[in-house]
Amino acid sequence: MKAAGPHAQCYASLVPSPLTFALTATDPATQARAGVLTTPHGEVQTPVFMPVGTQGSVKAVHPELLHGLGAQIVLGNAYHLYLRPGHKLIQQLGGLARWTTWDGPMLTDSGGFQVFSLAHIRKINDEGVRFRSHLDGSEHMLTPELTMEIEQCLGADIAMVLDQPSAYPATRAATEEALGRTHRWAERCRQAHSRPDQALFPIVQGGFEADLRQQSAQTLVDLDFAGYAIGGLSVGEPKDVMWEMLQATTPHLPVEKPRYLMGVGSPEDLLAGIALGVDMFDCSFPTRIARNGALLTDTGRINIRNARFKTAETPVLDGCDCDTCTRFTAAYLHHLFMAHELLAYQLASVHNLRFMVRLAQDARRAVIDGWFAAFRAGFDAAFRPADAAVQAAQKTKWLEARQRKGVH
Amino acid sequence: MKAAGPHAQCYASLVPSPLTFALTATDPATQARAGVLTTPHGEVQTPVFMPVGTQGSVKAVHPELLHGLGAQIVLGNAYHLYLRPGHKLIQQLGGLARWTTWDGPMLTDSGGFQVFSLAHIRKINDEGVRFRSHLDGSEHMLTPELTMEIEQCLGADIAMVLDQPSAYPATRAATEEALGRTHRWAERCRQAHSRPDQALFPIVQGGFEADLRQQSAQTLVDLDFAGYAIGGLSVGEPKDVMWEMLQATTPHLPVEKPRYLMGVGSPEDLLAGIALGVDMFDCSFPTRIARNGALLTDTGRINIRNARFKTAETPVLDGCDCDTCTRFTAAYLHHLFMAHELLAYQLASVHNLRFMVRLAQDARRAVIDGWFAAFRAGFDAAFRPADAAVQAAQKTKWLEARQRKGVH
Repeated sequence: MKAAGPHAQCYASLVPSPLTFALTATDPATQARAGVLTTPHGEVQTPVFMPVGTQGSVKAVHPELLHGLGAQIVLGNAYHLYLRPGHKLIQQLGGLARWTTWDGPMLTDSGGFQVFSLAHIRKINDEGVRFRSHLDGSEHMLTPELTMEIEQCLGADIAMVLDQPSAYPATRAATEEALGRTHRWAERCRQAHSRPDQALFPIVQGGFEADLRQQSAQTLVDLDFAGYAIGGLSVGEPKDVMWEMLQATTPHLPVEKPRYLMGVGSPEDLLAGIALGVDMFDCSFPTRIARNGALLTDTGRINIRNARFKTAETPVLDGCDCDTCTRFTAAYLHHLFMAHELLAYQLASVHNLRFMVRLAQDARRAVIDGWFAAFRAGFDAAFRPADAAVQAAQKTKWLEARQRKGVH
Repeated sequence: MKAAGPHAQCYASLVPSPLTFALTATDPATQARAGVLTTPHGEVQTPVFMPVGTQGSVKAVHPELLHGLGAQIVLGNAYHLYLRPGHKLIQQLGGLARWTTWDGPMLTDSGGFQVFSLAHIRKINDEGVRFRSHLDGSEHMLTPELTMEIEQCLGADIAMVLDQPSAYPATRAATEEALGRTHRWAERCRQAHSRPDQALFPIVQGGFEADLRQQSAQTLVDLDFAGYAIGGLSVGEPKDVMWEMLQATTPHLPVEKPRYLMGVGSPEDLLAGIALGVDMFDCSFPTRIARNGALLTDTGRINIRNARFKTAETPVLDGCDCDTCTRFTAAYLHHLFMAHELLAYQLASVHNLRFMVRLAQDARRAVIDGWFAAFRAGFDAAFRPADAAVQAAQKTKWLEARQRKGVH
């Protein structure tokens, strides 16, 4: 086993987790929970939607506006930041928080998902994964130990272990092999991790085999972490398969620890995940579709480029409290998109992020007030999700595009 | 002569100009002046640099940040807004101010410069100019009367007349022909203009013939406007020719009226223009170069992509009071540009605009305090302008590119 990197000396003694989680309420009719996550950079009210700042910036959104829209915790990505500008540089510049000027809680993804979906040539064995950078073709070897070194240099409140997700579909044998490695890597990450002001979450995998998911949860719980993530979902599988896998997992996670469903998702999936007992969510979806002119409303997505918005004197969403809707008309946004004005991406991203952040806030309120199931039913009755087939096709297209171009 | 368009009825009687200008101080050693321009939407302290919002948005900059950086008056462009989304739509949506949510003073350029540099096929005669849209090839006829209709619908505090700039170089005969038309069009604009809460400025032309510039100033002054613009400069001619033309003009403009040098310019040109008695400036230069990663400092432009900024823990410009410099390091900006993050364009534009706005503010203070010449000499001693040949080549490239692509 390799040493823990430059931090091993600084933080030699293991101390209790810097993260605490307290349940505020549980829903009588579902598994939904409301809680408070306390991190070194402040409290996070859960359920929570976490905006994604892959390369150290939530795309097109000024940190001041992030605060304004109620973001409580923001993500960074170890894979991207390791490749550019480099984790040691970020450490030298005071860490991810100081560098980006985001002073609230942060979480860094390990880059497991990115290295398996973005990087070009790769060789996987128990030591780690050898890959070529999607940026310049340079060759790198990512190990659990290096991942911990990177994330400790970045210095987020929560770090994620290196994992090996399974593709959809995958053989049971391949899934088992990846899962065994994921568990061994989780243990090595735990050994290598030493930063006392940073919590570490493992990632439950197991592909699309319910028993492997259960086994993964139990194995990781035995290792005792501050919180647990569920990964490898929302990668192209049908929705019912995804929920089946989640249902196979959460009963085996400790009630008193936070649960994080990685890479999910759309408004309807956020509420479905909350109903199944998830506390934390992240997805690049709201900002990604925003830059394409797709804006979230209570009845579904709209395409702001549609000619019907040309003369619309109302906001994108009536009653929306985001900076964009309280200030600008849909007609103005329509024009900005038609004219390819950069302000368009900013205003649209702020709206969609506020929509997701507020939806999680409203769900939390409903859990506390004891009517989450009715709240969810009401939302789902009005909200028309993008057609499942269309959604799956978009996702596949996006996954392929990011593999080609290295775009997150 | 055509009627004045839909506003003729609403504003049938001509009333005194809605614009007043008061000189606060004049510099003893140069022609520099400090003044206050009072518009229906508030006061403007001159000399002033006006950010350019061609298509109804100062590129990449949220109106709130525009306020924050001290912008006092913002430009819109009649040519662009007539083509997309249409002036009547903007009028229906409450006018340019309400539509863009910029609540301070505004000025609209007539689009004379744009139609002659951007539009494709054209026929010019005394009636107006026939052109094909750079957006969709549709054919349009721009006349002085239509220009007034457009700008009255947009509803800025200051409208510009339609003019015919001369190219550089141009024959004397061609310059004379364009100038005569410019004068006849100015008179027709004056006749057609009827909006009582909007001032109208004519544009002095005359190409690169000092006597024609003088004649143009005198002719337009005889028509008695609320302020005077100097156009057709900074179009590729050598700098000394530009200043010679300005010097041939300003002595023939009334002391008590504001003077606006259109499309200028760089920091050193702003101070040179102020020294020659100009009060108002606009240019897309600071935001355009910002999007390319060129940032203004007291010693000249820097290219933030340069590797030396990778580790720079200092702001882009030490002591700069802009939102970008007070919050972010040069290292972070360097990364945003290298990673093609949209936030880069926002942060860089804010810095460059603040630099220009503050330079005009500082120059004003120096005029009031009686040491403008020394202030300018101090600035010029430290500031290394882009090499004149490089600058001219860039400008030519830009003019050609916008002619091809319709980019402002």
